[in-house]
Amino acid sequence: MSVLVVGTTALDSIKTPYAENPRLLGGSASHAAVAASFFAPVHLVGVVGDDFPQKYVKLYRKHGINLDGLHRATGKTFHWGGEYEVNMNNRRTLFTELGVIENFTPDLPAHYRHIPYVLLANISPGLQLHVLHQMAKPKFVIADTMDLWINVALPDLLKLLRHVDAIVVNDSEARHLTGEDNLHLAIKKIHRLGPAYVIVKKGEHGAILSAPGGHFIAPAFPLEKVVDPTGAGDSFVGGLIGYLAGHRGSVDQNLRKAIIYGSVVASFCCEGFGLDRTTKATRAAIEDRASHIKKLTHF
Amino acid sequence: MSVLVVGTTALDSIKTPYAENPRLLGGSASHAAVAASFFAPVHLVGVVGDDFPQKYVKLYRKHGINLDGLHRATGKTFHWGGEYEVNMNNRRTLFTELGVIENFTPDLPAHYRHIPYVLLANISPGLQLHVLHQMAKPKFVIADTMDLWINVALPDLLKLLRHVDAIVVNDSEARHLTGEDNLHLAIKKIHRLGPAYVIVKKGEHGAILSAPGGHFIAPAFPLEKVVDPTGAGDSFVGGLIGYLAGHRGSVDQNLRKAIIYGSVVASFCCEGFGLDRTTKATRAAIEDRASHIKKLTHF
Repeated sequence: MSVLVVGTTALDSIKTPYAENPRLLGGSASHAAVAASFFAPVHLVGVVGDDFPQKYVKLYRKHGINLDGLHRATGKTFHWGGEYEVNMNNRRTLFTELGVIENFTPDLPAHYRHIPYVLLANISPGLQLHVLHQMAKPKFVIADTMDLWINVALPDLLKLLRHVDAIVVNDSEARHLTGEDNLHLAIKKIHRLGPAYVIVKKGEHGAILSAPGGHFIAPAFPLEKVVDPTGAGDSFVGGLIGYLAGHRGSVDQNLRKAIIYGSVVASFCCEGFGLDRTTKATRAAIEDRASHIKKLTHF
Repeated sequence: MSVLVVGTTALDSIKTPYAENPRLLGGSASHAAVAASFFAPVHLVGVVGDDFPQKYVKLYRKHGINLDGLHRATGKTFHWGGEYEVNMNNRRTLFTELGVIENFTPDLPAHYRHIPYVLLANISPGLQLHVLHQMAKPKFVIADTMDLWINVALPDLLKLLRHVDAIVVNDSEARHLTGEDNLHLAIKKIHRLGPAYVIVKKGEHGAILSAPGGHFIAPAFPLEKVVDPTGAGDSFVGGLIGYLAGHRGSVDQNLRKAIIYGSVVASFCCEGFGLDRTTKATRAAIEDRASHIKKLTHF
């Protein structure tokens, strides 16, 4: 079955202690859509400006991503600049140029409205709601968010949480959103805000799922070298919903494996700048890493 | 089979944001010995002063711990004072009174020298070596250490590492010891210092084992309330070696399960001050939590 992905389609200029790469293809929707495309057909909703390189459109197409929902507006593409410290965990934003994303309120193409799996990748919760309201009874809706929206758009975020099946946050966002320092208590509080499924990303420490069928603790795929972690969280949730859409059975049956496959795609993302390494992944390489995680956790 | 545990036998005075508890039974050997005692007979090596409360001797005895190696010296018992912040991850030492531990160089009782499983719990690496040299061909030797010894006794620690099968460190110690920020590369460097088995503790994020038979990633048992984490690492390694000693089969066959059982005992340790909760654990309660971890990680 198909996946709809809405989020940012952006240019990322990224500095690490070892290299500097301007105007890479980035944005939550780009990473998530490519990640999902390994498992299921993907339909993208986003906006780019008239400076958006054609080679990036080709990259989406190479992954079979339907671009009927990709708007082209007059102006500049959303452009983010960030810098990482040596340990790759701490990053700071150098600049954020919103460009055409500032006034983006898309009408979805008619054939998008019945897509069963919906990923509201990281973008303002107002826009996530705007897209969700145009969907006709999706089978499974998952939303990603970030600290910024907890700070500047909390009412919209709380409204969104009442309308999604699953929310993905990182551990510090879970604490921030609930004011609860203990992660397991924070997860309980997030359930009370609406989502039946709460997924907490812990970076190199893996992820925790809290679901009606119980908890699941997943490790991250161990990496000896992280080149650029930008988009890893987006790749994780993209791979996750792609896996769900691409496999028969209920969400409850498939969600644990979906989290493992999401982690695997995120691990490829971290090994190159932007989408460089992710786009070179193969389904066989993904299966290898998923099997490796199985061996790593067996006892 | 039996376990020998050497380490500190101490009094701990612990402050948390919620309570203050002076002169609890503490020390690396106390926590490790009690943890190991759930699975195998334990023989303790340590020193206490003439102020050591008889009720703590009774507590050791209640756990069947052989005390022929517990020296009683004239002077004060090692006394540590520490304070935790609200999130229970950050702690600071308020005072350290070495007392009788300062000049402790034990001669082991003759019947201790053939014990097959040896835990060199956290104490100075010089003393760990002194004990190890008195042992006749142990089957498995595991050492724990801490940042302090990397700073003040590195030559002894490096010598020790050449003579043990396994080393346990936390993630920041692994990075500190090797100068390597990436944990997986740090583990490789620690292997080159001697130990065939490297175990990295990551607190609430679980533990990583690197062994000849491959890596294992274990979660921590999820806790909604941490009362006092003092001794959790000691309980982990104590439970681990106790499990190994108490079960037939090779170390390679049993080490993954041993890590899970170590994590379980550590989880009980965190739920009370000092050894309060650990001593109330039962073998059945331990089995319940180990089964729960199995369910948490299955996919």
